[in-house]
Amino acid sequence: MGTTQLESVAEPKYWHLRTVLTEALDSEFAVGEILPNERDLAARFGVARATLRQALEQLELEGRLQRRRGVGTTVAPPRVGVAVGTEHHAWPGSAEDAWQPVDSVLAVPPAAVAEVLGTGPDEAVHTVRRSRTSQGQPVAAELLHIPRSSVPDLSAIDAPSGAARARAVLREVQRLELEGRENSVELGSARADDAKELDRLPGAPVLVVTTRFLSGGRVAALSVATYRADTCRLTFGASGGVEIHHGPQQRAS
Amino acid sequence: MGTTQLESVAEPKYWHLRTVLTEALDSEFAVGEILPNERDLAARFGVARATLRQALEQLELEGRLQRRRGVGTTVAPPRVGVAVGTEHHAWPGSAEDAWQPVDSVLAVPPAAVAEVLGTGPDEAVHTVRRSRTSQGQPVAAELLHIPRSSVPDLSAIDAPSGAARARAVLREVQRLELEGRENSVELGSARADDAKELDRLPGAPVLVVTTRFLSGGRVAALSVATYRADTCRLTFGASGGVEIHHGPQQRAS
Repeated sequence: MGTTQLESVAEPKYWHLRTVLTEALDSEFAVGEILPNERDLAARFGVARATLRQALEQLELEGRLQRRRGVGTTVAPPRVGVAVGTEHHAWPGSAEDAWQPVDSVLAVPPAAVAEVLGTGPDEAVHTVRRSRTSQGQPVAAELLHIPRSSVPDLSAIDAPSGAARARAVLREVQRLELEGRENSVELGSARADDAKELDRLPGAPVLVVTTRFLSGGRVAALSVATYRADTCRLTFGASGGVEIHHGPQQRAS
Repeated sequence: MGTTQLESVAEPKYWHLRTVLTEALDSEFAVGEILPNERDLAARFGVARATLRQALEQLELEGRLQRRRGVGTTVAPPRVGVAVGTEHHAWPGSAEDAWQPVDSVLAVPPAAVAEVLGTGPDEAVHTVRRSRTSQGQPVAAELLHIPRSSVPDLSAIDAPSGAARARAVLREVQRLELEGRENSVELGSARADDAKELDRLPGAPVLVVTTRFLSGGRVAALSVATYRADTCRLTFGASGGVEIHHGPQQRAS
């Protein structure tokens, strides 16, 4: 708390700088352009490097800048709109599904997942890993937890390993009548395995979409999908294509 | 880039500490409990204060910790599930609306908003500010942009100022036939005015929900709502109540 009350409560220096930088990005820089180095930027705006870094972190959070190892800081393209299915009668793996199965294992899920699924504390469930790309870039990673009771007819012959096994599990689950699905979205941070798949460092901000698939009055499958928060805008609803680049929120101040 | 490749790519120190701290939070601490100070925590886990701070920031991002001026770091309660309406035929201000009108002014919106609304670059629109609380705490702030052409019969007599004016604008917009609404969610940072209303510092992470209300083949109103990312989990769909405390993602590692 080395700053004065005025600075920290009213408008921190980095916040003012963020606003100035936002205007500079709008007027002077093109998408993909590399920003000058931190020393030059700090000199140009007459601020300490620590202040500059805070402002750059802020703009990265808002999706305006990308910082990449070995490249530097570049002006980010507009966030990609990614449709999050809310169709009440589509199982994962159905025809228009945007996800690619990667593999499937039998594993004891985290306690919070077991609680939602109503499985025992040491009961293994099918854990299908899937990935999703948009415009050639990885945008999301998913773990789909399916209790064995949801796919009782799955045989070892149907399901060898890897992506083939994942597809077999998804094919089996389609047999159940889907009564509805419920989504929630919250802020999270990328676990090491997700981070690798998303080409980010562990701890990078992600949007976590949890979906419960309901069948026979219970949760027949639970999906936990992590979307890159820097490059994605999640769209909900029938048409989905909300075409506001960067969102009006970022441009408003 | 003062760290080695191994540290920064595989598992940074703070990330390992975050995992250890998460386990400690689950087993040793109760919701609302104040954590020991940074010096004592750093000593207990044998890490540098900078590493500790990074881990604490991470856990704050994940909604596990709250850091408040003058109080210290406390264990956060589970995030509150906040339903984001996806009913295709509900205008803002209809009967079950959870938002409270605060005021309404005529103002030229940001360029990105004007583009979506199809209004001219210098054309003022009704800008209704609303707020939303949950369990007595502010959880979201909204700016609702409504072109004058959407409420042609609004008179100055109907609409004096403040909350009364906001209610009059919302009453008028209900006259239009609502053809649909489209939502998108992305990560943003709180503007100074929103931050104040949400009891946060400017730049705090927020979930930005943008909703386009469609009528007569055009966007008749545009809502930009910012939800506190630390305390909220947004729920979509009919029933809404996804009851996974903290989300399985956080508990999974």
